[in-house]
Amino acid sequence: MTYQLHYWPGLQGRGEFVRLALEEARADYVDIVRAPKERGGGVGALMKAMAAPDEPFIPFAPPFLKDGDLLISQTANILAYLAPRLGLAPEGEARRVFAASLQLTVADMVVEAHDAHHPIAGGLYYEDQKEAAKARAADFIANRIPKYLGYFERVLRRNPDGPEHAVGDSLTTVDLSLFQLVAGLTYAFPRGMAPFPEACPLLLRLCDAVAARPNIAAYLVSARRVPFNESGIFRHYPELDQDGAWSVDEA
Amino acid sequence: MTYQLHYWPGLQGRGEFVRLALEEARADYVDIVRAPKERGGGVGALMKAMAAPDEPFIPFAPPFLKDGDLLISQTANILAYLAPRLGLAPEGEARRVFAASLQLTVADMVVEAHDAHHPIAGGLYYEDQKEAAKARAADFIANRIPKYLGYFERVLRRNPDGPEHAVGDSLTTVDLSLFQLVAGLTYAFPRGMAPFPEACPLLLRLCDAVAARPNIAAYLVSARRVPFNESGIFRHYPELDQDGAWSVDEA
Repeated sequence: MTYQLHYWPGLQGRGEFVRLALEEARADYVDIVRAPKERGGGVGALMKAMAAPDEPFIPFAPPFLKDGDLLISQTANILAYLAPRLGLAPEGEARRVFAASLQLTVADMVVEAHDAHHPIAGGLYYEDQKEAAKARAADFIANRIPKYLGYFERVLRRNPDGPEHAVGDSLTTVDLSLFQLVAGLTYAFPRGMAPFPEACPLLLRLCDAVAARPNIAAYLVSARRVPFNESGIFRHYPELDQDGAWSVDEA
Repeated sequence: MTYQLHYWPGLQGRGEFVRLALEEARADYVDIVRAPKERGGGVGALMKAMAAPDEPFIPFAPPFLKDGDLLISQTANILAYLAPRLGLAPEGEARRVFAASLQLTVADMVVEAHDAHHPIAGGLYYEDQKEAAKARAADFIANRIPKYLGYFERVLRRNPDGPEHAVGDSLTTVDLSLFQLVAGLTYAFPRGMAPFPEACPLLLRLCDAVAARPNIAAYLVSARRVPFNESGIFRHYPELDQDGAWSVDEA
C-alpha cells in the first residue's frame, strides 16, 4: 500500500520530518500536493482530504499521513506510527518510550524556532511583528538553542548503546529529526549556531552521519528536497540572527 | 509499584494532565515534590532525579514519571504510557493513534495558552513582555481559541462511537485533558471564553461529565488540586482578556 503524505506545498515545514523517514526507508509514498492532478494530487486534494465529511479521525492541520483508510496526524505521532513499519524504531519498550519523548522534544523546539520569527501570531506577516521577533530570536539564540542542543548532546553521551545514535544502537526517526533540526537552525541562525560544532561534537557527528547515508544523501540533492526558504519553520532573516556565545554543560 | 510523578510545586502546569489520569484511576502514586523529605520528597528530590548521573533516559523538563526503573517524560508520552495501564486508552490501533494525535493537539494549545502571557521568553517576567502579550493574547482569543475548540467540537460530533467521548465509547486521557484545557482557558480568559457554551455544546457536556465523575469530583475539592494561579500555564491577567465573539463552523 502506498503511503500518502499530505502537507503544504513550497516549504519543508513539519512534513520534512516525515519525508526524511520515508526517504531513508525508500518507502512507497506519494507527496500528495506535488503529485499531478490526474493522479489525485495537488493542493485541492489536500484540502479535500482535510474536509472529508466521512472522515472519523480528522486532523487539526497538516502534515497527515494516509495509510489505506487510516488517517494519522501530528508529526511525532506519524513518526511513531511509521517507525516500526520502516525499521526506524528502537528495540524494546524502554527505548521506544524514550524515543517518543525525544521526538516530542524536537517538536517543542520546532515550535520555538517558528515562533522566533512569529512570536505574536502565525496569521500575521513577519513584518508586522518584527520588533517582537527580534526580542524573541535573541532569547532563542542566547538561551533556548543551548538548552535544547545541550540536552540532545547529553542524550547522545548518555546513550548506553553508544553515542552514534540518540536511542538504541541503530538509526531511528529521532536521529533523522535531529539532523533536520540542526540543519534548519544552521540555515536560520548561522551566527547563532557558530558555537555548535565545538559545543556539540556528538550531535555534529550524528548529523554528518545522517547526511552521508546513501538514501538521505540522494534525497538531499534531489528535486524532492524543497530548499530552505522564508515560508518554512526555519527562516533566515539576518536581522534576527546574532553571534551565539554558548557552550553546553558536561553533566 | 507506586508511580512517582515529578513536577514543579505550586502550580498545576503540565503535571495536571497526568494527575487527572492518576486520580481518575485512583492509581497508587506519589507527587514527589509534595511528599515529605523523610519519604524521599521535596524539590530536592525532583532536582536530584533530573540530574541523576546514572539515568540513561534523561528528561528535558518536568513533568516526568518514574515507574520502577523507567523514567518517562513529555506529558503526551506519559499519558500514552499510562492510558492502557489505567484503563484510559481506547480500543484498537486506529483509535489509539487518533487519541495520540488529539493528545498532541491539546499539548500544542497548551504551549499557545502559555505563550499568550509569555510571547517573548519564558525566562523573562510577564511585566517585561506585557505589550507583546497583549497582542498575542488578542490573537489567541480571536483566532486560536475558536480554531482549536472548534476542532475538538467537530471531533466529538464526528466520533463514530458517539459524542460522549473524544475517541471511542469510554473515558480516555483525552477527555480528561480536554476538561483541564477548557477549565484553564475559562479561568484565564472568562471574557474570551464567553461564547464557549453556545459554540461548543458537546465539548461543554463532556467537560461537565468529567467534572462530575466521582473520583475527579473528589479530587477537585481536595487539597491535592492546586488552585489555578499566576504561576501556571493558564493565568488570569485581566488586561490580556477581552470579549470573545466567535462561533465554530458546522463542518
